[in-house]
Amino acid sequence: MSLALSLGRRGQGGTWPNPAVGCVIVRDGRIVGRGWTQPGGRPHAEPQALAQAGEAARGATAYVSLEPCAHHGKTPPCAEALIAAGIARVVAPIADLDPRVDGRGFAMLRAAGIAVTTGLLAEQAARDHEGFFLAREQGRPFLTLKLALTLDGRIATASGDSQWITGTEARRTVHAMRHRHDAVMVGAGTARIDDPSLTVRDLGVTRQPVRVVVSRRIDLPLLGTLARTARDVPVWICHGRDADPQLIDAWQGLGAKLLSCDLQGRQLDIVSVLRALGSAGLTRVFCEGGGALAATLLAADMVDELVVMNGGLLFGAEGRPALGAMGIDRLAEAPRLSLSDLRRLGPDVMTRWRRPTS
Amino acid sequence: MSLALSLGRRGQGGTWPNPAVGCVIVRDGRIVGRGWTQPGGRPHAEPQALAQAGEAARGATAYVSLEPCAHHGKTPPCAEALIAAGIARVVAPIADLDPRVDGRGFAMLRAAGIAVTTGLLAEQAARDHEGFFLAREQGRPFLTLKLALTLDGRIATASGDSQWITGTEARRTVHAMRHRHDAVMVGAGTARIDDPSLTVRDLGVTRQPVRVVVSRRIDLPLLGTLARTARDVPVWICHGRDADPQLIDAWQGLGAKLLSCDLQGRQLDIVSVLRALGSAGLTRVFCEGGGALAATLLAADMVDELVVMNGGLLFGAEGRPALGAMGIDRLAEAPRLSLSDLRRLGPDVMTRWRRPTS
Repeated sequence: MSLALSLGRRGQGGTWPNPAVGCVIVRDGRIVGRGWTQPGGRPHAEPQALAQAGEAARGATAYVSLEPCAHHGKTPPCAEALIAAGIARVVAPIADLDPRVDGRGFAMLRAAGIAVTTGLLAEQAARDHEGFFLAREQGRPFLTLKLALTLDGRIATASGDSQWITGTEARRTVHAMRHRHDAVMVGAGTARIDDPSLTVRDLGVTRQPVRVVVSRRIDLPLLGTLARTARDVPVWICHGRDADPQLIDAWQGLGAKLLSCDLQGRQLDIVSVLRALGSAGLTRVFCEGGGALAATLLAADMVDELVVMNGGLLFGAEGRPALGAMGIDRLAEAPRLSLSDLRRLGPDVMTRWRRPTS
Repeated sequence: MSLALSLGRRGQGGTWPNPAVGCVIVRDGRIVGRGWTQPGGRPHAEPQALAQAGEAARGATAYVSLEPCAHHGKTPPCAEALIAAGIARVVAPIADLDPRVDGRGFAMLRAAGIAVTTGLLAEQAARDHEGFFLAREQGRPFLTLKLALTLDGRIATASGDSQWITGTEARRTVHAMRHRHDAVMVGAGTARIDDPSLTVRDLGVTRQPVRVVVSRRIDLPLLGTLARTARDVPVWICHGRDADPQLIDAWQGLGAKLLSCDLQGRQLDIVSVLRALGSAGLTRVFCEGGGALAATLLAADMVDELVVMNGGLLFGAEGRPALGAMGIDRLAEAPRLSLSDLRRLGPDVMTRWRRPTS
């Protein structure tokens, strides 16, 4: 099961709007087939593992990281394929909450006389598929916020110097994280000041995450890196309904996708932004700042995971703060997160935090 | 040797101006005596371990965490005591840099026919005795700076709420760290705003570290906790030479010790402050802020160890920053520290950083 989950995670970032599933077929204690959801969401994990197993699938156990699908979509249902291959037992940690599946996959298998076991490593599976579930249930993607900070919580000196607060190991980890998400998201300020490419580099990958910029007024340089490369790697701009139609046309002309979002007062409504991204199919979004967007996400309790990379530097009070204003007066009002991981990355420290389960 | 070092560290915080030494006497593979420098610096480790060993010391090996002293001070030299007890071999990691010793202890032992081995765990020993050595060589104590922060580097909300950013485990660790230092130091702002007691609590200890407040103008509440308790636990005030003589008299009347320090421009010269503390005998000082004092210490490269306690909270840009202004423009000018330890403390993360050895 652990291997099936791990294979499934290989697909993360590339299968949206479908879940990233892994499948391992075991016959007489030997692995005879392995598969995971391929980029674009097809083929699914099960048919690939079954194809590898061939005749050995007959009477074998299939470990699948999510309930096999039961509906005819662009591919025939995986439950049917498992039945046809003569699988004797299916082990899957959790049901697929997609209303088209939601227990029907398990029911179809059981009706065909296949033994079905659920619950194994269910917690890990729920984490792995959290983006897919959130998109289905709340219509928004799973959101990871990454902050790369000095020890005193600064992201740049007063003059804007930020290269590099963290070392190569931490930066490589960030690129690997981008790759495991459907999209990388920044605010307009970061897009203007850093002129980032937001691509995954030095990992030998071909598929790139979507690049999302949140900018009410589409206040972005038309001659910048994102504009120049919008036809090579998708650029999506979440803007206010009141954005200048000429700018909308210009960016569409450059190849960007424009998502019109609601306003909340004078700012973009961040929940509307995330819903728009969810409607467009995204299940996992990796936000890399800037401070204003990060503070808005935290204040709206929209951060599902926070990744903090701390370099051993101190900039003092003039340095640029990691977060914009959050209007917090009493400590009890502040977002409080629960530590899920800490590790050394070369000279730096990475800590990961999630919403408390309580 | 590891045990001798560990016994020695037990004395840290209580032996100043003397080093905190540990001694283990081993005869035929069995520990026959153990000792460590007692509060106040006497008795030394060796005589205690020898007394425990009694006749078993004859022909035994003595592991001492620092070169045995060779001079007649308030106690007879430990080298003489080891010779008199018939010790056959002395293992000590490093020489005592005190000019009254500095190799003379080893020479005295060798002259008496005792085998002397040095170098074992020398790096750890150098760390353990760093405060004592710094005081001897540079006339200033070892300085540990502790910061208890939110993930975005804040020490309080805009309204000053800071209880509690970290949990009980982290706070208990801070108390244990206070106890391992000769003094706890804060700036005047912290003393005014927090009205702290700066004592070691809930650890069942009797000895308390000296409480040092750095305040150019002695701008401290005469009715506060420190003033009220100055006769119970020492309060030392490092002030500018231009401080009001009446305030000096008042605080002396309350039982505080006043240390007059040089100015650098309009501020206290932090090197002068540390020299004054070194001259007064302190070897290990634990600074707990506030932001202005912490920034001054970092900018002057006077922080030997930085301890960061991070609670899983975020306050946003209005929160009070951990550090005051440091005047850093380019990233290359910023203090860069090297990670020496990271661990989880309940819900919080502790990281420890030291000057890079390069």
